[in-house]
Amino acid sequence: MITPEIKQQLVSVVGAPWFLDSPNELYAYSYDATPMYQSFPDAVIMPGSTSEVSAVLKIANEHRIPIIPRGSGTNLAASTIPIQGGIVLNMNRFNQIHEIDVQNLTTTVGPGVITANLHQAVEALGLFYPPDPGSMRISTIGGNMSQGAGGMRGLKYGVTKDYIMGLEYVLPSGEILRCGGKNMKDVAGYDMTRLLVGSEGTLAVITEITLKLLPLPETKRTLVAFYNNLVDAAKTVEKVISSKIIPATVEFMDQGTMKVVDEYAKLGLPLEMKSMLLIEQDGSEELVVRDIEKIAEIAKEQGAARVEVAQTLEEGAKLLTARRAALSALSRLKPTTIMEDATVPRSRLADIVSEVERVAEKYGLQICTFGHAGDGNLHPTCMTDERNKEEIERVEKAFEEIFHASIRLGGTITGEHGVGIAKMNYLHLKVGEFGIELMKRIKQAFDPNGIMNPGKIFAGSERRRLVVKR
Amino acid sequence: MITPEIKQQLVSVVGAPWFLDSPNELYAYSYDATPMYQSFPDAVIMPGSTSEVSAVLKIANEHRIPIIPRGSGTNLAASTIPIQGGIVLNMNRFNQIHEIDVQNLTTTVGPGVITANLHQAVEALGLFYPPDPGSMRISTIGGNMSQGAGGMRGLKYGVTKDYIMGLEYVLPSGEILRCGGKNMKDVAGYDMTRLLVGSEGTLAVITEITLKLLPLPETKRTLVAFYNNLVDAAKTVEKVISSKIIPATVEFMDQGTMKVVDEYAKLGLPLEMKSMLLIEQDGSEELVVRDIEKIAEIAKEQGAARVEVAQTLEEGAKLLTARRAALSALSRLKPTTIMEDATVPRSRLADIVSEVERVAEKYGLQICTFGHAGDGNLHPTCMTDERNKEEIERVEKAFEEIFHASIRLGGTITGEHGVGIAKMNYLHLKVGEFGIELMKRIKQAFDPNGIMNPGKIFAGSERRRLVVKR
Repeated sequence: MITPEIKQQLVSVVGAPWFLDSPNELYAYSYDATPMYQSFPDAVIMPGSTSEVSAVLKIANEHRIPIIPRGSGTNLAASTIPIQGGIVLNMNRFNQIHEIDVQNLTTTVGPGVITANLHQAVEALGLFYPPDPGSMRISTIGGNMSQGAGGMRGLKYGVTKDYIMGLEYVLPSGEILRCGGKNMKDVAGYDMTRLLVGSEGTLAVITEITLKLLPLPETKRTLVAFYNNLVDAAKTVEKVISSKIIPATVEFMDQGTMKVVDEYAKLGLPLEMKSMLLIEQDGSEELVVRDIEKIAEIAKEQGAARVEVAQTLEEGAKLLTARRAALSALSRLKPTTIMEDATVPRSRLADIVSEVERVAEKYGLQICTFGHAGDGNLHPTCMTDERNKEEIERVEKAFEEIFHASIRLGGTITGEHGVGIAKMNYLHLKVGEFGIELMKRIKQAFDPNGIMNPGKIFAGSERRRLVVKR
Repeated sequence: MITPEIKQQLVSVVGAPWFLDSPNELYAYSYDATPMYQSFPDAVIMPGSTSEVSAVLKIANEHRIPIIPRGSGTNLAASTIPIQGGIVLNMNRFNQIHEIDVQNLTTTVGPGVITANLHQAVEALGLFYPPDPGSMRISTIGGNMSQGAGGMRGLKYGVTKDYIMGLEYVLPSGEILRCGGKNMKDVAGYDMTRLLVGSEGTLAVITEITLKLLPLPETKRTLVAFYNNLVDAAKTVEKVISSKIIPATVEFMDQGTMKVVDEYAKLGLPLEMKSMLLIEQDGSEELVVRDIEKIAEIAKEQGAARVEVAQTLEEGAKLLTARRAALSALSRLKPTTIMEDATVPRSRLADIVSEVERVAEKYGLQICTFGHAGDGNLHPTCMTDERNKEEIERVEKAFEEIFHASIRLGGTITGEHGVGIAKMNYLHLKVGEFGIELMKRIKQAFDPNGIMNPGKIFAGSERRRLVVKR
């Protein structure tokens, strides 16, 4: 596919050190954080500038070579698996924070900047970039943007897509374009910025990102509430919000998750309880105190068996860190951990949690559920073993039932992970066959030769969850 | 174009009372709120249901008849002028608030619902729909959505596009589709919702809209600051925001606007001053008091000659209502009022205001400037007379210079009005020729026959501001 002649052209663009095709290197890019998917690229290129990206794309486009843009590969939808071979475009050299504009409350960064590094840089100036996806210590802003990543602060602050103001991007034809910018208001033509957000590298390669910032909240406070059942936790969430309080974070953990997290982080959680909520509010001191008191009251009224307010910032941070560790903690239990992100309107929270429990029992699986209760965004997580083909088949069936349940409850198949390969067989449930057709036509407008991350988002003729190792 | 046979098909879909083609009726739909544009449709149809919209579109698509979706026609970009004839689709019968979902903080409405009516309905339940475009007492949610309307509360709360969560829409082929929904998080495929927002009826007809709501802020307070120059007002805005305060509203008026507004609303403004800021903060009582005090201090430090805090909610509301009346007040001065919405990053506010002053002087025109200073979104407004061809030519040239200046300052040609016909000759300044080409391809994906609101957003071969009366 990449002939010696094409390789020479590509090397002459980026320089030999940035063209990788040894077996070891190709192996390292044959998988991402999604379990059970693997496929080898033909080459890995690490471009150093937008003009290099443009030149690489022109060559790839001419020779119909797939391009798979990639950050840290922490996505959970198999969105960066080179399923049709081709070139993985590792964007990690685009790791500069070009500017933090304190006057306009924006920052302009390369897509390779690590999310947590950006948090640190803006917070040092008293500013705030709210999106905090689970993988933020490893993930890149470019990856967050491509997948439409969410996080714990979605309820009050929105998610990655709500912070992307402008982009520089390169089309497969090599054209370099810009959309959006630093303007708070801009309606000059179609919203290309937002169309590219969450497009999972299937439309263009992003080379620069302008993000919106906020002032850093003055302070924050954390509360935990424990319940003898699931319904009271869900009712608490509803009641808090219908009392006109929007907390920064409302996280849910079921008993299974609590046990594993407690073992991992030694928190001394009351493990006889069936579920817990972890609620954080931020803002001015007086508002935070008032809201947390009100939330504690509501939790008790709704039947919480225990409610505790963290006494210090450190104590609050420790609880949130423990919650963040849920996936890592769960993944130590069994060889394979499959985390999904079924999402429903907030009011259907109790329904989807019960549904997950029912499905787990029906198929004899160990599924723990935790997630962003304030957003209705849950992560039912199955501990399994990919070598056990029979069990994996049951896992597939179970998740298919969970997706159908989400849709039935007015929800969606993916709240913050993306479609990739992992969910492409279910996309029609949410957007319909004609919706898919329309999206494909849009892809055609950007990428007539179909080189951009092929085999993602849109399923082929057969709709099966596929595991590819070539 | 609409033969008797086609007319009969259309009438059989919607019923005779909802098919209008008398000269008087066609005249009423030959213009919108944009001065100097007029063109007659061949018919006006008022569909009563989504399935009627679908049936009308199928007929129009088959016979290549232009479809111009329209709400109240308050847009200022000539976006609803039937410039190629065809059918104006008046969506005013879609005026139901279907649901206000207190648990999920959403509302689902027909596109024909009047914006201010929605405000009233949700506020009665203690909820808040922040977007407040200038025309909100007449404009529809569908029109706001189509144009990507803004308003005074953009700085803190964002604009219409930030509140659209889901849509039902009909393609020219008659297909009825849905995108988005009530989920706070949803990344299932491309963001079709956001692509349709601001597309000015060039892609599809919107038949249902799900909007995000917030809790209604507890209280609010208003402050006015008067300045002997322009720069100190701009510096105040910058300083407030870099002090980590995000007011709900930061409105700017220059001396010319102050004079006219004062004459209209009898406020007793100090008319010897060169400019004023009108700042509103909302939230909890303690926060509002603290922020307004801090803002008053900053305004004085930055050289405000007078700072006054409104003593009551009514006094604050009166000031904002006066500001809202700026366009009406200015439009009484001369036969023709042309309001633009040049927008720049907030830090370039002083630069663009000076630029407008320089351009007005250069071309000997009366241009007053007011607008949303917190968003960098200004409305330079020219009082002129369309019968004076020579002066209109100078107006054209002046605005062209202002657009170029906005772009040079990192801004955009339209912050909240849209492109329509009025700005299509300038779109390339912001998005580039290839950006336009890409948008056209996207339009093609939705509307292969080009029946949806033709002649809008994308200029033909000649780039001139055109006045059409046929």
